[in-house]
Amino acid sequence: MAATAYDPVAFYDGLVEHGLIVPAETQGIFGRGRVFEDVLHRFDRLILGIAENDGADVMQFPPVIDRSILEKTNYMDSFPHLVGAVFSFFGKELVARELSEEVHAGNAWDQYLGMTHVCLNPAACYPAYPSLAALPISASGRLVTLFAWVFRHEPSIEPTRMQAFRVREYVRCGTAAQVVEWRNTWRARGVELLESLGLPARCDVAADPFFGKGGKMLATNQLDQELKFEVLVPVISEANPTAVCSFNYHQDKFGNAFGIRLTDGSTAHTACLGFGLERVTMALFQTHGFDPERWPDAIRRKLWA
Amino acid sequence: MAATAYDPVAFYDGLVEHGLIVPAETQGIFGRGRVFEDVLHRFDRLILGIAENDGADVMQFPPVIDRSILEKTNYMDSFPHLVGAVFSFFGKELVARELSEEVHAGNAWDQYLGMTHVCLNPAACYPAYPSLAALPISASGRLVTLFAWVFRHEPSIEPTRMQAFRVREYVRCGTAAQVVEWRNTWRARGVELLESLGLPARCDVAADPFFGKGGKMLATNQLDQELKFEVLVPVISEANPTAVCSFNYHQDKFGNAFGIRLTDGSTAHTACLGFGLERVTMALFQTHGFDPERWPDAIRRKLWA
Repeated sequence: MAATAYDPVAFYDGLVEHGLIVPAETQGIFGRGRVFEDVLHRFDRLILGIAENDGADVMQFPPVIDRSILEKTNYMDSFPHLVGAVFSFFGKELVARELSEEVHAGNAWDQYLGMTHVCLNPAACYPAYPSLAALPISASGRLVTLFAWVFRHEPSIEPTRMQAFRVREYVRCGTAAQVVEWRNTWRARGVELLESLGLPARCDVAADPFFGKGGKMLATNQLDQELKFEVLVPVISEANPTAVCSFNYHQDKFGNAFGIRLTDGSTAHTACLGFGLERVTMALFQTHGFDPERWPDAIRRKLWA
Repeated sequence: MAATAYDPVAFYDGLVEHGLIVPAETQGIFGRGRVFEDVLHRFDRLILGIAENDGADVMQFPPVIDRSILEKTNYMDSFPHLVGAVFSFFGKELVARELSEEVHAGNAWDQYLGMTHVCLNPAACYPAYPSLAALPISASGRLVTLFAWVFRHEPSIEPTRMQAFRVREYVRCGTAAQVVEWRNTWRARGVELLESLGLPARCDVAADPFFGKGGKMLATNQLDQELKFEVLVPVISEANPTAVCSFNYHQDKFGNAFGIRLTDGSTAHTACLGFGLERVTMALFQTHGFDPERWPDAIRRKLWA
């Protein structure tokens, strides 16, 4: 039984009323409560369990990454509107006093700041690529898992569209054939995992939210080549279900950008998959209700095993 | 037996060689490997275990917070040099093309960005205060626990001085007497926990790294009033041990800034304590060696219980 009608505001209000999320002044940066966190981490452990024998390396990166990673991957061509670049104060005493006065007067203070070498990480896998280039890659390729806070500057009333959220990600690096086979395996695993939790999941080809007119061509190309798939579950709308999991085949884009090479000297192909952990958690609350103690036994057994 | 001599570069190199951290191009934003993460989370669970019966609410906030929180707490007066303000792109198609050209030409592109409503969170407890003001506080006060990525713009060769790191934090809210008693209890608990892991910990009064000449007075005041204590362990220097845990009594500063009131209408006092999880993890590696399988039995039993 759905927790609320399929409506973003009703669903957000329900999450707040049940203590599952903690409101904040700006959209898309609310806090999460105890029960929300418990469900989220239990779902994450199910993913880790499925991948247990796949031999993934663990890389845990901070929410900020080197700005050069966005520059090398043409991020600012495709998603300039989503970027989060980090600025700080580089001035001395006298300028700091001016800055302080502006803040106290309630005026703008952006003009006192300068760009740093770091940006918020827009996709869990980004910081892994320089590291993949730094180490030798055997004939069987490599697999890395990441758990990351990612940032997209898109404030929204939809609780499912956050400025900051967590992703459990896997990155596979190898030949084109290895990478596509792995992606296909996980596409089936992803749907199966979500269905086993009673979620009405379906998989579809998808495109990234590229910026502007040029972006429309990039999106068409991505769809034509079936480079991106998403698993969708209704959360705030039945007509437009929410992507809770995405699979991206990058061909040799990141291999070229960072010089990732296989043992035979050829450029590595890469693919990644990411589960949007807050979105899956919200899908569970919407599908089974706001109180996990009243969820169906089969779902409880799986998550609280 | 110490892992290396007390030297920042030798210790960093040792962490990298043993796969405990993964280098990144900019200082203070390196990745963490599987064993590092395992130790860090096991230490975090020991803290949670100690606080198990204290009745803490859980609030999990993203690494970005509302900019108004820094404005209301005078953060830009005290720590302007550490701030991480988030900028994004608000322009349309034609300007985006110019931006793209500058990025591809390797030129600066800061002039195309504008300030958003969010900043990186500089201390785990900050986003909790608006929420504490939103809910009624009973006679026994309130306790909240947070696990947060925090940001300080201070790139450094010292592995212990990171731009982004995780903190397990507790915030206590109540009368002055309740808050100070709680702080004193935890000051003893903190030293005891670290000593039980074989770390040569000692507690001392401390001051925050306030900016500029005015900052020196603030620091003197903080020391005189014993508002801040730190627990210190040698990691990269014996003469200047690293603060791995800190205790801050804010008096009614945050109570006033956010309008946090007790049942009798008086302004709440607050205190917080935070364990720097990466720093404790590094202290364990420095004190007991880079390979946890060879750590003393008593330490292993405690962490791998």
